[in-house]
Amino acid sequence: MSKKHVVVSLGHDALGHTTLEQHDAVRRTARTLADLVEADCQLTITHSNGPQVSMIHKAMTELRRIYIDYTPAPMCVCSAMSQGYVGYDIQNALRSELLSRGISKPVCTILTQVTVDPYDEAFYEPTKVIGRYMSREDAETEIKKGNYVREFPGKGFRRVIAAPRPIDIVELETIRTLAMADQVVIACGGGGIPVIEQKHILKGASAVIEKDAIAGRLAAELQSDQLIILTGVDRVCKNYGTGQETPLSVMTVSQALELMEQGHFEPGTMLPKIEAAISYLEANPQGEVLITSMNALKDALRGKNGTKITASA
Amino acid sequence: MSKKHVVVSLGHDALGHTTLEQHDAVRRTARTLADLVEADCQLTITHSNGPQVSMIHKAMTELRRIYIDYTPAPMCVCSAMSQGYVGYDIQNALRSELLSRGISKPVCTILTQVTVDPYDEAFYEPTKVIGRYMSREDAETEIKKGNYVREFPGKGFRRVIAAPRPIDIVELETIRTLAMADQVVIACGGGGIPVIEQKHILKGASAVIEKDAIAGRLAAELQSDQLIILTGVDRVCKNYGTGQETPLSVMTVSQALELMEQGHFEPGTMLPKIEAAISYLEANPQGEVLITSMNALKDALRGKNGTKITASA
Repeated sequence: MSKKHVVVSLGHDALGHTTLEQHDAVRRTARTLADLVEADCQLTITHSNGPQVSMIHKAMTELRRIYIDYTPAPMCVCSAMSQGYVGYDIQNALRSELLSRGISKPVCTILTQVTVDPYDEAFYEPTKVIGRYMSREDAETEIKKGNYVREFPGKGFRRVIAAPRPIDIVELETIRTLAMADQVVIACGGGGIPVIEQKHILKGASAVIEKDAIAGRLAAELQSDQLIILTGVDRVCKNYGTGQETPLSVMTVSQALELMEQGHFEPGTMLPKIEAAISYLEANPQGEVLITSMNALKDALRGKNGTKITASA
Repeated sequence: MSKKHVVVSLGHDALGHTTLEQHDAVRRTARTLADLVEADCQLTITHSNGPQVSMIHKAMTELRRIYIDYTPAPMCVCSAMSQGYVGYDIQNALRSELLSRGISKPVCTILTQVTVDPYDEAFYEPTKVIGRYMSREDAETEIKKGNYVREFPGKGFRRVIAAPRPIDIVELETIRTLAMADQVVIACGGGGIPVIEQKHILKGASAVIEKDAIAGRLAAELQSDQLIILTGVDRVCKNYGTGQETPLSVMTVSQALELMEQGHFEPGTMLPKIEAAISYLEANPQGEVLITSMNALKDALRGKNGTKITASA
């Protein structure tokens, strides 16, 4: 029996919001990831990049205001930069943690693009909130540029962009080669750089891909044994946030679908995780999904915490 | 006989100075690189990143001035971002060019760190000029921060940083795995992110590694069959820039060393290329170095242009 191949999806908690926060957060994250490597798992790691890409986008926009000889950097370029930045911090923290445990193993970051469908309905009704709050005036400027904004009463406006479904992971062959060589691979950062394929050219799309959606897709494509989604809660809950909140320890795909239809999973947070789990398990019925928090992962791996989802009971 | 493994070092010409310039320049560069792939070479590509990392560093500094809740991004973080950015553009342009020729081959970018020696003498006398011209006032601010600046009479001041020798390529195993799998690998962008190893931790160093130095090292470590250094001139010259300028079509290592001692190669431009060639050929006497321009490469591959350097005649 070969190594257990695991795709791990890291949420915002794993990275923090600023360069300094990230520098500290990745060390904690590295300990969790190193536990998995020590448990003889080959890891392919995806991560969110919301605050990071937003920081870079803002920086590049300010630069353009001050030095007119610079041209604006499109979102896809900022996303590529954020993959470099976040990957650098994660790979370093994990490499150090592994070495301190006597494990010498290559850890690498693969710049990753993901194709999306230009006719994906998400483009007609953008829902993904990005960036910080802006004034009405700034919001109107964004609208003139063809961008979408949403008002948050009493707080201001924020940009919303489309979150289309991922189609193909362009660098899949590279990721697979490294996963098969038992390296730790960081890929599809921030959901991957969304691109639209036109003939042989990949054009950056003004969109963002849900990191959980791409984690599910990656786990399916790599035929991973397990998909671990790390998030802010220890367990998936029924009636989350109400008086009747009930943590779930196990679920089958059909149970998950039923609860989903009943509206138990919040759009934008738990819902995309459940959808990712289902799409992965439909492609790989032998697989297993674990949704939990970083703190609870150790217990969850022993069946003492977290929510385990499988194709059948 | 297996594929010919080639390391290609791309200079500034290959990328341009701004986001728009780069977008156009990489398409021309991609045609040159695709010619090599078509000639059955496996390519590992390194590139410069001077203008790119400088742009990002400036953007992150401006951001910090405007939003005080952002912490400054150190040079190593900017360098990681630049690898993501430049890699993204090169890999896309090359992928498209290959597909348009009917070649479907994985092209990927590996975030790369390179260790340097904290006691490298380069740190005591920084020589590598980076960034744009600044006023005397800004230069004094830099000096107070512990940075080095150099005055260019009549033009202003520019920062200078150390260019230490590369020691180890941290992600070498990943690069090798992909090169062996016949993928096109973009690695060690901008010379690699310079890091200093302290126990198990890699700390970003305030330095820059000569892209040619790392190209030589990479070709040596990968035991490449050929190292191609693309630059602004078609051939290496004796007495460059004088009335007695003589282009050289072939050189052995000992001839190169002799000319080097006689001061024929300009520090900061041709000298590091010759040094890289020598260090690679000393490690791989069977190898071959080709120094030429992008335009002349096709002829150079047929022995009709460029300068070929070998260990012996």
